[in-house]
Amino acid sequence: MALKKKPVTGMNDMMPREMEIRDYLIGLIKDTYKTYGFQSMETPCVEHIENLCSKQGGDNEKLIFKIMKRGQKLRIDEAKEENDLADSGLRYDLTVPLARYYACHANELSSPFKALQIGNVWRADRPQKGRFRQFMQCDIDILGEAGILSEIELILATTAMLGKLNFCNFTVCINDRNILKSMAAFSGFKEEDYDEVFIILDKMDKIGRDGVKEELFELGYPKESVDSYLGLFEEISPDISGIRYLKEKLGDYLSDETAEGLEIIMSSVDVAKECDFRLKFDPTLVRGQSYYTGTIFEVIMDDFGGSVAGGGRYDKMIGKFTGQDTPACGFSIGFERIVMLLLENGFEVPKKGIKKAYLLEKSLTGESVLKVLALAKADREAGKQVLIVNMKKNKKFQKEQLIAEGYEEITDCYADSLKQI
Amino acid sequence: MALKKKPVTGMNDMMPREMEIRDYLIGLIKDTYKTYGFQSMETPCVEHIENLCSKQGGDNEKLIFKIMKRGQKLRIDEAKEENDLADSGLRYDLTVPLARYYACHANELSSPFKALQIGNVWRADRPQKGRFRQFMQCDIDILGEAGILSEIELILATTAMLGKLNFCNFTVCINDRNILKSMAAFSGFKEEDYDEVFIILDKMDKIGRDGVKEELFELGYPKESVDSYLGLFEEISPDISGIRYLKEKLGDYLSDETAEGLEIIMSSVDVAKECDFRLKFDPTLVRGQSYYTGTIFEVIMDDFGGSVAGGGRYDKMIGKFTGQDTPACGFSIGFERIVMLLLENGFEVPKKGIKKAYLLEKSLTGESVLKVLALAKADREAGKQVLIVNMKKNKKFQKEQLIAEGYEEITDCYADSLKQI
Repeated sequence: MALKKKPVTGMNDMMPREMEIRDYLIGLIKDTYKTYGFQSMETPCVEHIENLCSKQGGDNEKLIFKIMKRGQKLRIDEAKEENDLADSGLRYDLTVPLARYYACHANELSSPFKALQIGNVWRADRPQKGRFRQFMQCDIDILGEAGILSEIELILATTAMLGKLNFCNFTVCINDRNILKSMAAFSGFKEEDYDEVFIILDKMDKIGRDGVKEELFELGYPKESVDSYLGLFEEISPDISGIRYLKEKLGDYLSDETAEGLEIIMSSVDVAKECDFRLKFDPTLVRGQSYYTGTIFEVIMDDFGGSVAGGGRYDKMIGKFTGQDTPACGFSIGFERIVMLLLENGFEVPKKGIKKAYLLEKSLTGESVLKVLALAKADREAGKQVLIVNMKKNKKFQKEQLIAEGYEEITDCYADSLKQI
Repeated sequence: MALKKKPVTGMNDMMPREMEIRDYLIGLIKDTYKTYGFQSMETPCVEHIENLCSKQGGDNEKLIFKIMKRGQKLRIDEAKEENDLADSGLRYDLTVPLARYYACHANELSSPFKALQIGNVWRADRPQKGRFRQFMQCDIDILGEAGILSEIELILATTAMLGKLNFCNFTVCINDRNILKSMAAFSGFKEEDYDEVFIILDKMDKIGRDGVKEELFELGYPKESVDSYLGLFEEISPDISGIRYLKEKLGDYLSDETAEGLEIIMSSVDVAKECDFRLKFDPTLVRGQSYYTGTIFEVIMDDFGGSVAGGGRYDKMIGKFTGQDTPACGFSIGFERIVMLLLENGFEVPKKGIKKAYLLEKSLTGESVLKVLALAKADREAGKQVLIVNMKKNKKFQKEQLIAEGYEEITDCYADSLKQI
């Protein structure tokens, strides 16, 4: 078989320039989140096929890279369908493996457990620009804490991190699944129709209120319900007063707990935030993942016109592993999007010491090389980043390249010049 | 299908205590190697099956986790063997993907290219203590540089890194495939038998000189050759004088280039090394990988009784991708072994700021919580790592746990006490 030079379809080789930014970003994320008491943890990239296909991943379950059984377990002649051949697969997110991890190790972990995970996930999506089949996710989650302290800390930590990158034009949108449900209930929709209604509502920012109305009519929902539903959205202001308006309007359909909780989250975040951003109550925010059970949030970057982070509460997932529900809430930043934004904006990673290069003339003998090595050792001890390379025929071009790579000090080393040392 | 709590067979969930060490180690590795001019790069974890099964991986090729084809390409009814079903797999090392990467991107990269990669690899080895089917490798490689400057810099950088962890009782063993070959040739072995002879020689430290002799006789090699071969090892001292002895003894069988090169590497490293360790010429060092073409080296940790790093020159691998040989030399540290040693020795990661915890009484209202958030914000700005958690019924136990986790300052927050702030 001929060897292949390109990476596998849809996956990406990382060039040093991008890696510099990625390394820096990972360091910044870990440092920032650790000041909020989050602890690093990791699960294997390979997960049981049973866990990946447990209907918690929605459409992502169609995109799993499956790993073949091995040895005796692999029976090609008897196999009828894919899952006869595979017993594991590459994880498509970090949340399902986290739930498994917590189910397995809860009694060895802090309580509540504030988890920080950064790792690759894989989805066999149709390849497209800026979207890869292997990409990095970066999640913080608080497990075992039912109160809104989780939401407050998750939003504060995530926005603090974005602030440290000097992102400023961003908005944190917040909503609650229970608000979505109570508005639908108030307008007379049936519970079994909620998911379908919310999928259409989710398109509000793209197709507008009239578009949503039309699509709901097309699906045959009664005019009364649709009019009542869309009428609600007209009066809601995107702040705490919007929540109060809804509470008044919806009465018992909306629990005090939900309304007050959301209010405290918003007011707390507004006071305690580490950097400047807008906080918006957005009753049209849906978030696709079906596993969310309460608060949901999303960070929209105005300059980018899209979401760079998202999350919410999912109190029912861990119970699927343990039989006992455990409160859980998480926030995931779009690592790849942030890297892309930093690359596009020509972001410069803060320097760690001067970069210095020694160019060695080809004929340098052992003893002269020793002198250069001693110089380099002293430079490194003084905090410099030192490169020792053989001089090329086209020294001028070589130096231009080194300058382009950020080398500020370049020393030519000839046997003669080193004699004096 | 029932959900599974444990990780897949042979793979490992990482606990926060271990992750702290891993995060620290990765940071230290990247910082140290960057002072030697190495640049971070990454390849996808998934690699073409053609590249993985190209006979460069030796026995590792039997341990590949293969990934199933998808969609139309997967034809279960027509499949006869594994490779009819798989078009990719998880990489079993970082060297083969690096060669592919260089073949694909050489003209975008610095020349020579000093690569630093840290990443997971997968091997379906029989599970055993301390050995996992997913594990991290950490490699530095210098591509496009034929001279011994590569070897010198690789050894200096690797040992500098180990020195920063205060490992001191270690030995760098060095040899050259060309020395192995010239000794075998001198003793009259045929070229086609070299590999078999070297596999037996590699056991010298376990079975001794007599054991090697016996095994060679058993395979039917002539007494004359075996006696001559083993006689050579008797007189070689484990330093530069050993190389000189061999050069004198072997005459034209051993090239000046190889002997002098090895001598300069050893004397240079000895002078320029950043930390204290022993450097040993070891003519019995073989290293399994068949792709090595010149110098080979290994770091033996005396306390551990095993190898913690290894590498060598492999000038023929990139040519398999490009049709044109490119000089290449690399050094890989045993990341997992080092983590294990640090864990066993009770290694403490240097602190980043005081750890402080606020315990909130359950009945705290919105306003009191705001005060705590403001205090926490100031603490974080002052560089502290701050945890805010709800107070548990068993506060004493909760505090003991926090102290065990390294929290030095713990503040109880009651509505009363916060009024004064």
